[in-house]
Amino acid sequence: MSNLSVKHLLGIKFLTEADLHLIFETADHFKEVINRPIKKVPSLRDITIANLFFENSTRTKLSFELAEKRLSADVINFSAASSSVKKGETLQDTVNNILAMKVDMLIMRHPNPGAGVFLSKHINAAIINAGDGAHEHPTQALLDAYSIREKLKDVRGKKVVIVGDILHSRVALSNIFALQKLGAEVKVCGPLTLMPKHIESLGVKVETNLKAALEWCDVANMLRIQNERMEITYFPSTREYVQQFGLTSDLLAKLNKPITIMHPGPINRGVEVSSDVADSEHSIILNQVENGVAIRMAVIYLLASKIK
Amino acid sequence: MSNLSVKHLLGIKFLTEADLHLIFETADHFKEVINRPIKKVPSLRDITIANLFFENSTRTKLSFELAEKRLSADVINFSAASSSVKKGETLQDTVNNILAMKVDMLIMRHPNPGAGVFLSKHINAAIINAGDGAHEHPTQALLDAYSIREKLKDVRGKKVVIVGDILHSRVALSNIFALQKLGAEVKVCGPLTLMPKHIESLGVKVETNLKAALEWCDVANMLRIQNERMEITYFPSTREYVQQFGLTSDLLAKLNKPITIMHPGPINRGVEVSSDVADSEHSIILNQVENGVAIRMAVIYLLASKIK
Amino acid sequence: MSNLSVKHLLGIKFLTEADLHLIFETADHFKEVINRPIKKVPSLRDITIANLFFENSTRTKLSFELAEKRLSADVINFSAASSSVKKGETLQDTVNNILAMKVDMLIMRHPNPGAGVFLSKHINAAIINAGDGAHEHPTQALLDAYSIREKLKDVRGKKVVIVGDILHSRVALSNIFALQKLGAEVKVCGPLTLMPKHIESLGVKVETNLKAALEWCDVANMLRIQNERMEITYFPSTREYVQQFGLTSDLLAKLNKPITIMHPGPINRGVEVSSDVADSEHSIILNQVENGVAIRMAVIYLLASKIK
Repeated sequence: MSNLSVKHLLGIKFLTEADLHLIFETADHFKEVINRPIKKVPSLRDITIANLFFENSTRTKLSFELAEKRLSADVINFSAASSSVKKGETLQDTVNNILAMKVDMLIMRHPNPGAGVFLSKHINAAIINAGDGAHEHPTQALLDAYSIREKLKDVRGKKVVIVGDILHSRVALSNIFALQKLGAEVKVCGPLTLMPKHIESLGVKVETNLKAALEWCDVANMLRIQNERMEITYFPSTREYVQQFGLTSDLLAKLNKPITIMHPGPINRGVEVSSDVADSEHSIILNQVENGVAIRMAVIYLLASKIK
Repeated sequence: MSNLSVKHLLGIKFLTEADLHLIFETADHFKEVINRPIKKVPSLRDITIANLFFENSTRTKLSFELAEKRLSADVINFSAASSSVKKGETLQDTVNNILAMKVDMLIMRHPNPGAGVFLSKHINAAIINAGDGAHEHPTQALLDAYSIREKLKDVRGKKVVIVGDILHSRVALSNIFALQKLGAEVKVCGPLTLMPKHIESLGVKVETNLKAALEWCDVANMLRIQNERMEITYFPSTREYVQQFGLTSDLLAKLNKPITIMHPGPINRGVEVSSDVADSEHSIILNQVENGVAIRMAVIYLLASKIK
Repeated sequence: MSNLSVKHLLGIKFLTEADLHLIFETADHFKEVINRPIKKVPSLRDITIANLFFENSTRTKLSFELAEKRLSADVINFSAASSSVKKGETLQDTVNNILAMKVDMLIMRHPNPGAGVFLSKHINAAIINAGDGAHEHPTQALLDAYSIREKLKDVRGKKVVIVGDILHSRVALSNIFALQKLGAEVKVCGPLTLMPKHIESLGVKVETNLKAALEWCDVANMLRIQNERMEITYFPSTREYVQQFGLTSDLLAKLNKPITIMHPGPINRGVEVSSDVADSEHSIILNQVENGVAIRMAVIYLLASKIK
């Protein structure tokens, strides 16, 4: 049986197109599992997984935990808030301590870009990057691409616009890598103050007019705006952002076609998307959440089979 | 087999007397289970339960968690402290996200009265209210009534006085509903400053003299006084409260009969009850805690059988 | 089959030498278990264990949790941060409430020396002390002695120096008791300002010169220095401490023999030990962590067999 080309999931950047398809096919199986009355499989009863979250996260951590439990893995949780990290221990020492307790896999969220890549060179355990600073968030991109595939049959040839604060978003970068590998066309849309300088070198075009972007695309992935950041950056204010980049049903009604609406959550209703758009039939926001568990089961399962 | 008349446990207000008896009989069975060497049953292996605590709680959360685990349910915990709620997400979005991960039942504590009732109209999952502001705390009232039934054989015809801060207490309101449905007589006793305005419209008499209340009753349920609140309200101070409403063995010795002493915990020894009263043979305070697990197993089990 | 002479593990002080050997032999078995693909045994499926941590702890709590899960016990976690303790409840009431929920064993960390001993007189459950103030930390001493036994075949006759802040260390006191019971010779080494007054009455010599101590010993257990404490105590500063008591490879190279290096973690690299020493072949720091899980499984298993 084929398997992934990698031992870790550090970023979409390191995956091949075949890896992506294998993850999706495996997720198809697990999606069927979690819709059964008994939502569990005994596959990973011999695996211990540590969730290391050096940044707060609710939905990603919950989704990983459910994925782990439904694979019957043993799970331990480690949060930075009450940890030795505060006592000045290095990341490598913290992780080596956890691994010495016979842990097979690490799910790690860390504020520093590349934390997972650094660790992978120094430790013996499979690592899944659950978000490293503004760098990558590969499982989010996988579940996003998987949700597009589910809704529109295929990702290849589709036009996807990612709207919002591209500069600070790990979701944007991982999505660009995943969608391009799968043959989609990607544009980004947002204020120039929130756009990385060399983004076009990744092969994505920048569009500053939301209406134009929507007219072009099949799918709009509306990134979350962090209000707390908006208060520091003076332009745009949240109010200006809503006027120029908020997605409303009025705007959608002016298009001559339906487009699929995505959002990684949590939504600021009335900011990135209006409430009726979030709840409309073209929104697949809750499907993304549901698919997140299946995708994470698939990634964990495939990487675990490489350490046995 | 008979089952509950409701799909959710939002408040005692919505239950019939038959519901209460069914819950008690089911709890009898589970109480026998948790006193076996193996305290678990495999009944709910196909159910995933999320504990959503938007307010801190130790004993209620622990009691629910044990109930869930002893029914072999899969359990995920969500606490507001590290959650998306802080990021401005609506309650309904938070809950819908959790449910999209294939969760079957929610145990929810929330500071807003009616939060559970609101949610029940918008989501597809069984909800158990674990306390909504100063409104209801139905499982506490169930375990209280169950503990009276255990100690005095029957609740019908018994006289119960609830003593303390009735105004801010969800325990008081749920207890009044449960005890009345079961045929007990209920009085409330406490300072008038801590008494709701229209409390007598519920069919309970107000008594401001503790000794008179004790002479009347078979059971005294001594509510917890929140010291932090007492510092804000000027009357009564904690000191004045203890003098007028603190239950001591001296006071009990003056009665010509034994009465059963209850307290929902955590106790302020020397405030609501003196230490010797809390530990006396007439105190069923620890029985209440033990019965809490059996009652919660019963409620979860009965509601789960309606979603399968 | 033989068993422990005690019902609780409150301190090494209360154990016999035979107890220590029994724990080690049981840990040998569990160490073999956790190195199998399936790291679990079903031994304690009928036991519920509560972890009560009234002080923060990452590694000790994680190690206990893994030990409990690998024995298949049911586990509930209770942390003081979100607990009734804040509401003024007594320790005894808190614990009795947890026990009323049919908990069989308590793992407790508490800031007050003797908290476990006090509790053991008032409750019916096995208690394992996971650290009580500056008093004892028995499972740490057990895993330390076990790691010496593993590295040097036997503890008897070995010379062990404990280096650092002996005054505030529960690790030091428990280590002294364990090593002496097992027939080792123990010295302590550190600044006199961090040395308990009557330490020599325990039969340990004080050495203030690190080089002399190292020349004497087979094993050096380098205690963690708490920087936050050093800022308050004026002498020595961290800088002065490193100069006089920091272990470097230069210092080790001057000895005419190898010595085994231990540290209870988390390490301040460049303070208690230099980075190359921590990672050298003579360091058994990560073995200590690994052995911690096996030792805790052994202690829990042996005490559980006394409550059945």
